[in-house]
Amino acid sequence: MPVTRTAETQWTGDLASGGGTVSFGSSALPDVEVTWKARSEGSDSITSPEELIAAAHSSCLSMALTNGLTKAGATPESVRISAAVTLKPGTGITGIHLTANVQATGIDGDTFAEVAESAKANCPVSQALAGTEITLDATLED
Amino acid sequence: MPVTRTAETQWTGDLASGGGTVSFGSSALPDVEVTWKARSEGSDSITSPEELIAAAHSSCLSMALTNGLTKAGATPESVRISAAVTLKPGTGITGIHLTANVQATGIDGDTFAEVAESAKANCPVSQALAGTEITLDATLED
Repeated sequence: MPVTRTAETQWTGDLASGGGTVSFGSSALPDVEVTWKARSEGSDSITSPEELIAAAHSSCLSMALTNGLTKAGATPESVRISAAVTLKPGTGITGIHLTANVQATGIDGDTFAEVAESAKANCPVSQALAGTEITLDATLED
Repeated sequence: MPVTRTAETQWTGDLASGGGTVSFGSSALPDVEVTWKARSEGSDSITSPEELIAAAHSSCLSMALTNGLTKAGATPESVRISAAVTLKPGTGITGIHLTANVQATGIDGDTFAEVAESAKANCPVSQALAGTEITLDATLED
């Protein structure tokens, strides 16, 4: 069965001096502020579309890689995925770099590398994000 | 200057019985849980990659549409964007439907429709999400 999730942004005013409030439709995440200044110059406290994409991609890949490990006959113990999404204002989202650090038993290094690349290529969020370059560094930890 | 935003997911265990924690790298958003069950069956309390994509897309389009209105000579007052992202488990993200409700002065209906379509096509998150179908219903309110 398809599952549809929603979120909403209410923006008031113009781009430079106004701001928005993002509401998540079906989770316990609180309403949060967005501004163009925080998005285009960076911020330690205000989220941005790129941070939200990073969260979506890291969570999706963690599921795809965990599932891939099981299907390859391994036992996944810990899968940590970091996603870094870069916006070049005026150009767009220029790339997403993923880093995977995995603890699993019952898999060799070559098979792990194949499983990781397949998860990167096939996770639903990667497939949707076909318009930007996606790179992955995957490490099977001892 | 490019801006890079990060997020991380720590998954423990296998896909069906394990779970993950999403951490946002540079905002005040709290750590949140993700599970395959909540993602594939829906949830009123647990976020999912698709909800996070909806938040990213709605916030990006609110900025692009606000900016487009100003560039078209209008004065944006309120731009509300809802995004609905559908996952079909086993298939992928099958579509994103956006709804825009806008209050602005100094713009006619035809120009508004052009500005809205251009914002949909050109906002950085739409461009990155080239792998899925994106639709928009845009309304200029009285």
